[in-house]
Amino acid sequence: MESCVPPGFRFHPTDEELVGYYLRKKVASQKIDLDVIRDVDLYRIEPWDLQEHCKIGYEEQSDWYFFSYKDRKYPTGTRTNRATLTGFWKATGRDKAVRDGKQQGGGGLIGMRKTLVFYTGRAPNGRKTDWIMHEYRLETDENAAPQAS
Amino acid sequence: MESCVPPGFRFHPTDEELVGYYLRKKVASQKIDLDVIRDVDLYRIEPWDLQEHCKIGYEEQSDWYFFSYKDRKYPTGTRTNRATLTGFWKATGRDKAVRDGKQQGGGGLIGMRKTLVFYTGRAPNGRKTDWIMHEYRLETDENAAPQAS
Repeated sequence: MESCVPPGFRFHPTDEELVGYYLRKKVASQKIDLDVIRDVDLYRIEPWDLQEHCKIGYEEQSDWYFFSYKDRKYPTGTRTNRATLTGFWKATGRDKAVRDGKQQGGGGLIGMRKTLVFYTGRAPNGRKTDWIMHEYRLETDENAAPQAS
Repeated sequence: MESCVPPGFRFHPTDEELVGYYLRKKVASQKIDLDVIRDVDLYRIEPWDLQEHCKIGYEEQSDWYFFSYKDRKYPTGTRTNRATLTGFWKATGRDKAVRDGKQQGGGGLIGMRKTLVFYTGRAPNGRKTDWIMHEYRLETDENAAPQAS
């Protein structure tokens, strides 16, 4: 992977790069030159097994990047607990707006970032772990909730 | 510059990459695909002017990388104070060995890293600043000072 990039470069993307470049391309099924975002099925993989799937080169990593489709339990309705075999991901805090910094005057909304924590066991029980996930989704001012102006 | 590297990659080289790849190439006058290490004359440039010369892309940076020849005051003798127009760089602490991590069993010596602090004014006076420089030089076990074994 990283052998295609000159020595000394590390993958430390900003939220804007993750959404505006990588997620957009993934959603549009466009080819990404350097495949640094792996496809996984997040509900069939435990957090500690992601490392092996999402390695970039030979570096020690503390963050792993992947693309996964949302698993809907029911065709309508939103699934709150994203469960794996041994536990579940639970949202925490408020979603954060991701904006296009290149635009003049603030920048338009390009996506949202949700933070989730992994719990072992089954909701509403379960034991909190140190595993944190940021889930990015595409979003624009047009499809976002209306705001006073 | 960084536009040649995929989005999300940042230049955060290790000591080993700086010495084993970039410094070796610079010393051998070999072409480096992505010119992230600028040539400067360190004794004709003030620390705060380095930023402009050594920018990579459009990112905010807190470290700048450059290559400069050592300025010898006298053909023999080692110059201790590396002076600019407004001040001088003064070595601090002990030099650190840079080793080739890819080698089995520890790795051979490939260079040394000296840490220097910038003082405004003239030695032995001068006022210490927050500017820190790491000066790398090539060195191998063969040309290093002998060690007990």
